[in-house]
This record gives sequence, structure tokens and C-alpha cells, in this order.
Amino acid sequence: MDTAANRPDCELCRNDGGHLIWRDERWRVVRVEDAAFPAFYRVICNHHVAEFGDLLATERARCMDLVVGVERTLRELLSPTKVNLASLGNMVPHLHWHVIARFEWDSHFPQPVWGAAQRVLQPAAAQRLPRGLDELDDAVAQSLRHA
Amino acid sequence: MDTAANRPDCELCRNDGGHLIWRDERWRVVRVEDAAFPAFYRVICNHHVAEFGDLLATERARCMDLVVGVERTLRELLSPTKVNLASLGNMVPHLHWHVIARFEWDSHFPQPVWGAAQRVLQPAAAQRLPRGLDELDDAVAQSLRHA
Repeated sequence: MDTAANRPDCELCRNDGGHLIWRDERWRVVRVEDAAFPAFYRVICNHHVAEFGDLLATERARCMDLVVGVERTLRELLSPTKVNLASLGNMVPHLHWHVIARFEWDSHFPQPVWGAAQRVLQPAAAQRLPRGLDELDDAVAQSLRHA
Repeated sequence: MDTAANRPDCELCRNDGGHLIWRDERWRVVRVEDAAFPAFYRVICNHHVAEFGDLLATERARCMDLVVGVERTLRELLSPTKVNLASLGNMVPHLHWHVIARFEWDSHFPQPVWGAAQRVLQPAAAQRLPRGLDELDDAVAQSLRHA
């Protein structure tokens, strides 16, 4: 991992990048506030590194353990149709993994969240989740304390 | 990993899912034939499993070693602006990782490949890559033989 000092011009070096759920020295998990996809978390490297392949094997394993920790909590609490995982970073090239619970009823399914909307939701997505976001955040944090 | 017999109704149980580059008993790597994103590979589980978190930790490590093997080869040969990694599976819920070399000049950058096009390319993307696809395929296959 590039352990160079964090970069003042990098958004994810400067800011948490969402609602902070959990952190340790190397990693943090935030919930993205997205009305269309309320069960949307990010696993973010605290240090500036651009590509997943820049991590050491042990760091990659740790990173994916955290991703899977979030994934499993979303599946246990929400029974989503699918979980989407992605590390893109075209706009902010600082390693972060999107972990998004998807539902066949959501606005874009089966398209990616970055694709074209398929329908208009009424009521809003958060109201259709079987659990509240506070409960979800607590369960994610709890799972990561044991990851 | 779910080692149940492959499913006759699953597209990635029935077909390679692209131009086959490499395979072993558990995994295969194909190149997706996409004119807009020619350096686009997929790491696919040979057995039917839907979610990354359904794999054992050793299987996840193997899977991501293969993903990183492809990522590093793309970086070495093409020096892309960014590599995009994603496991979505909304349409085909059979574990497959997209590994896509992205360039600031490509049709959608910095949007995801599933997002809105940003420009029309002329000449076509494959002609702008610094290496030919046959050479790229050979290098990917070679890297995986040592993964």
C-alpha cells in the first residue's frame, strides 16, 4: 500500500465520503446518502492508494473481508435480490468499494445504479426496506467489529 | 462455494461468456467483445454461485488474485487512466468480475461503462490502444498461468 501522506487535493483523503459507520487505522466504512439506493455503503482505504492491485495480498484480503462483512449484513437484514460490488474510482481515484443492496423493485434494477432508470418509485426506496437505516448501520458496524 | 450441479437455465453455466483466455477447474477468464471498451475481461466462477460472500475465504483470495492478475497486466501493457472492477450480476446472478481498462479518452470516461456516453470516438477504441488484443490476451493468459 502506498503509505505516502494523504493528498490535500483528494476528496477521500480530506473527507469521510459519507456517513461514518466504522473505522480502524487502515479502513473505514461509510453509508452513502442516496435516496434511490438507501442501502449503499462504501469501504474506503484511509490512505491514498488508487488501484486495488496496489495493495499487498494481506491488505487485499482485509479489504475484501470488510466488503463481505457489509455484504453479508445487507443480505441478512434486507434479503436483497442482489448485492453489487464495485471499485471504479474514475472521478476519485482513491480506493473505495461500493457495496449496494439491489432489489427487483428499485428504480434501476436490473441495470447498474449508474445506468438508466427503469421506473419511478412511489413510495421512496427507504420506506420499502424491511429495516430502518439506523438499525442497518448498527448491524453493519457490529459485524465489522468482528471482521 | 455452492458446488451444486451447474444450472441449465444460467447463461454463465451454459456458455463461456466471452472469448476464453484461460481456465482451470474452478475459474475462467474471458475477454468481452465490446467495441467501446476493448480491454474488458471477466473473471468467472465455473460453478454456479451468486454472491462473492458465498465463497470461502480461500476461494475469495484466489478469485481476487485472478482479478488482480488481469488488472496488473492491463496496467503494464496499456497504462490506463483507471481500472474498473465490478461484480454486479443483476441480469446473470452467477459470480463474475468485470475488469475493465478505462482511458480518459474513452467514450464514457469518467462515467462508468454502464453510464451515459460522454463523447463519440473516432477512430474506434481498439485502434487507440497501444497494444493489439491478441498480444493483450496472450499477456493476460501468461500472467494467470503464474497466479
